[in-house]
Amino acid sequence: MEFEVKAKLKYKVKSDSSIILSIHASDKYQKIVDETLIISPKIVATEMESAWEGNRLISLAVKPAENLSITYKAIVNNSFKIKEIRNVREADIAKLPSDVLPYLYPSRYCQSDKLYRLANNMFGYKKNDFEKVQALTYWIYLNVEYLSGSTDSETSAYDTVTEQAGVCRDFAHLGIALCRALTIPARYFTGYAYLLQPQDFHACFEAYINGQWLLFDATKLVPLNGMIKIATGRDAADAAVANIFGDVDFVSSAVSCDLVDQSLEPFYADHEQNFAISYT
Amino acid sequence: MEFEVKAKLKYKVKSDSSIILSIHASDKYQKIVDETLIISPKIVATEMESAWEGNRLISLAVKPAENLSITYKAIVNNSFKIKEIRNVREADIAKLPSDVLPYLYPSRYCQSDKLYRLANNMFGYKKNDFEKVQALTYWIYLNVEYLSGSTDSETSAYDTVTEQAGVCRDFAHLGIALCRALTIPARYFTGYAYLLQPQDFHACFEAYINGQWLLFDATKLVPLNGMIKIATGRDAADAAVANIFGDVDFVSSAVSCDLVDQSLEPFYADHEQNFAISYT
Amino acid sequence: MEFEVKAKLKYKVKSDSSIILSIHASDKYQKIVDETLIISPKIVATEMESAWEGNRLISLAVKPAENLSITYKAIVNNSFKIKEIRNVREADIAKLPSDVLPYLYPSRYCQSDKLYRLANNMFGYKKNDFEKVQALTYWIYLNVEYLSGSTDSETSAYDTVTEQAGVCRDFAHLGIALCRALTIPARYFTGYAYLLQPQDFHACFEAYINGQWLLFDATKLVPLNGMIKIATGRDAADAAVANIFGDVDFVSSAVSCDLVDQSLEPFYADHEQNFAISYT
Amino acid sequence: MEFEVKAKLKYKVKSDSSIILSIHASDKYQKIVDETLIISPKIVATEMESAWEGNRLISLAVKPAENLSITYKAIVNNSFKIKEIRNVREADIAKLPSDVLPYLYPSRYCQSDKLYRLANNMFGYKKNDFEKVQALTYWIYLNVEYLSGSTDSETSAYDTVTEQAGVCRDFAHLGIALCRALTIPARYFTGYAYLLQPQDFHACFEAYINGQWLLFDATKLVPLNGMIKIATGRDAADAAVANIFGDVDFVSSAVSCDLVDQSLEPFYADHEQNFAISYT
Repeated sequence: MEFEVKAKLKYKVKSDSSIILSIHASDKYQKIVDETLIISPKIVATEMESAWEGNRLISLAVKPAENLSITYKAIVNNSFKIKEIRNVREADIAKLPSDVLPYLYPSRYCQSDKLYRLANNMFGYKKNDFEKVQALTYWIYLNVEYLSGSTDSETSAYDTVTEQAGVCRDFAHLGIALCRALTIPARYFTGYAYLLQPQDFHACFEAYINGQWLLFDATKLVPLNGMIKIATGRDAADAAVANIFGDVDFVSSAVSCDLVDQSLEPFYADHEQNFAISYT
Repeated sequence: MEFEVKAKLKYKVKSDSSIILSIHASDKYQKIVDETLIISPKIVATEMESAWEGNRLISLAVKPAENLSITYKAIVNNSFKIKEIRNVREADIAKLPSDVLPYLYPSRYCQSDKLYRLANNMFGYKKNDFEKVQALTYWIYLNVEYLSGSTDSETSAYDTVTEQAGVCRDFAHLGIALCRALTIPARYFTGYAYLLQPQDFHACFEAYINGQWLLFDATKLVPLNGMIKIATGRDAADAAVANIFGDVDFVSSAVSCDLVDQSLEPFYADHEQNFAISYT
Repeated sequence: MEFEVKAKLKYKVKSDSSIILSIHASDKYQKIVDETLIISPKIVATEMESAWEGNRLISLAVKPAENLSITYKAIVNNSFKIKEIRNVREADIAKLPSDVLPYLYPSRYCQSDKLYRLANNMFGYKKNDFEKVQALTYWIYLNVEYLSGSTDSETSAYDTVTEQAGVCRDFAHLGIALCRALTIPARYFTGYAYLLQPQDFHACFEAYINGQWLLFDATKLVPLNGMIKIATGRDAADAAVANIFGDVDFVSSAVSCDLVDQSLEPFYADHEQNFAISYT
Repeated sequence: MEFEVKAKLKYKVKSDSSIILSIHASDKYQKIVDETLIISPKIVATEMESAWEGNRLISLAVKPAENLSITYKAIVNNSFKIKEIRNVREADIAKLPSDVLPYLYPSRYCQSDKLYRLANNMFGYKKNDFEKVQALTYWIYLNVEYLSGSTDSETSAYDTVTEQAGVCRDFAHLGIALCRALTIPARYFTGYAYLLQPQDFHACFEAYINGQWLLFDATKLVPLNGMIKIATGRDAADAAVANIFGDVDFVSSAVSCDLVDQSLEPFYADHEQNFAISYT
């Protein structure tokens, strides 16, 4: 499907600073038809590939400015497959690819080591990894209240499992932490999302099942086939929209994601059916 | 310097399980003269390279066994340089290599985002990054009590900065978190350590200064030039000695590190002098 | 019922210190037939009544001693009523006695303010306060593993609700926190407990329902009518066995509780029946 | 000194609810010359004395209402003594009055048990309890940034000691926790405060030194002799302005405190001088 995505970020820069942005559509597994990046006042942005995940980053060395404006636009063909999931095999940890292993360990916002008993008490009875992830995703959907402003950048899965309120990032972190506590590799996924209201960046998560990464979204806010991937990582600490080093105030952001030339038959995962979506 | 290192781990395995061990001496920047790995009962170990750090891992698929014994021995020439540190430049974040960037972000045990004000209040006045790391390392040494058993696998830098007791792992996590809070990349370093009493694996940390990784150890328990590196990572979640998936009881470990054929002139970093040690 | 209770505590005192003990059987709602307190080396113990709860405390000013031994023995007639609970009324907060109000608020180990959504999601559907407390007590019993040594003096209800392991104190804290999150006053209850294995002090909790304090024990380790009350409080911070100020090492404790002259028909609360026990 | 204090609170009540307010000036140690309470729509408020502290509470059973408005006004003669503090004696714990003892223990927001080493490392060298409290109050003043909106109702001393930002409540909690970690009884103190900008309720803390409660305020925002006491407690959980049980939205509050007929010679405690203020 072809989408037009836009992100416009504004900052007030008060001292010489560095900004590292993760707003570019990923060029892995999806096709970027066209893209532009406009920075005002004009400065040179360095594009990098993140060391571990291969995410696209841009790095800016900025000078003090009342209004620093960064506008990214792209036309992207996202790429996904909707798959019927059968014959689910338990992950054989000893044979996992080494680039999947890190997603089994606890991370900053996903303290899976503290959730081991809870996850197994709640979802351990399910008969395979796919059903476990479906069940935990649905449990989050039913029990965690989507509540803007209820959490902040320090909120982690350990908080959300008990406080049961949060935003998409918190839903994703809790899903990841529960997966890892059940010995299922899981990672954070951010992107542009078609039909998200209010429009913003979105976050959900992928679980590694039958040798492939499948996408899950406990918020149920958007169709799963309307995602344009920006980045993956162990959690939001790996895939923040912006990392800022210096004295910079965030002013505003505007994000959009529109369908270009087709209608989309929305795919929403049903927790009782054997279909899932993969973006890799 | 040439060292003989040994690690003998014993487990009781109660169900089919996977064990991933990080006990092999690194083969980067140091020379492995000889090494053996003996597993009893005999099973095949798969050696892997960790995806991000390039650490050596071995992966074991184990069957139930009263006594699973794993013995690693190696003769290793460690490799280090003691350097005079002059003309310390502040890290230019926008130009950091992409494989250094991840060490600026908060991680599971090193919640640098929560320590920003504290770190800057305590060490921000120091005139460059090297002096900051020296000062924070010395502060940890003076204020945190080395106390076996006072902490566990859930203890993080956020706890240690206040509770002020812990073991080498906790000292390292606090050092790393304070560095990152000061916008200095820092990572966890584990290895064998000559003269460590009681003998065990050791952990300390590296900070990225003037484009190179320098080693710091807030415990001051061992000479800094008697380390044989096993692994680096963002924190202990990346570089655990063992990750176990299944029903396995730890029984015992015995670790040693002996100097083979020379005498060692011990190097201990002094927080007021301009010398540091690098293992890369 | 008449019980003989004993507690023998041993300490090594390394500096002039103060010890405040809460080991005396309460003299409210139960009859102390006989009691003795022997301290060796001999020192004078001052008995006090705690300011808020009216618990009996003894305060000792101790000098350095290799072996400080404190032995308390008593013959006590405990007093309880087993009641059928019908027509449960919701607590009218605006009319609660002022000495019940404090038990609605969060306390050190019972952070009910963080458990509001979880408690209401899990137990809010039950049709009255009694059924809610029965249900939450039973949920704790089913999901939290009784595991000696799994927790320490810093563990709180916020931890236990997620980590799902602990000892009697943790079971009690979680019960209290969930009650308060449901706007049901609840308090900590410590005492001697008949048939507790291994023998030790016990902790459980009381909830305020229909204008009376009812006892609940999520551990299900002992009959509810074999309790000899020592103290109540908001949580363990109010009702610790010992508060020590100075350099004193705990050496050992031995606790016992024996039935004197009768057989006891054990009462265990069943979470589906309308009976409860009250000690006030 | 005579002050006129006012508090006007507005709520939107969405269901039958209970509200317990702590906005009345205390009638202990100060003289209430005149006071009025107006509630609109008119309902009967029940005045109570809190069980433990003797604070004045009013309890309201409220019905759904678009605008519930509660207005309290009073003319109060506050009462304080400025004292020279000499010959400071260490608290003899074994002889403390039983109503002072609870202020030595950890509470919800003041986890003194976790701050023991830190407090003693930082302030243990001071030669008596008064100097310790002066030093810790001054340290908080220097290191914790007063930042509206940086914290919420879950923030505790354990957070503030590390995150080093907060509002008056957080400054008070940290002061209390550090005192208790040094074995100095300390409690939370709320009131109206003359010259506070912006006008609001204020919070600070009292420490028990030489057998009396002395007032400390690490914010240094107001003169210490312009306080009109509302309540004391172990921490904010005991002395909240409002405890609400039901579906009630806070709309606004307006608070003022004016000097009636005299000029005030402001008293600000200096951390290096031997003067302190007592409100009891």
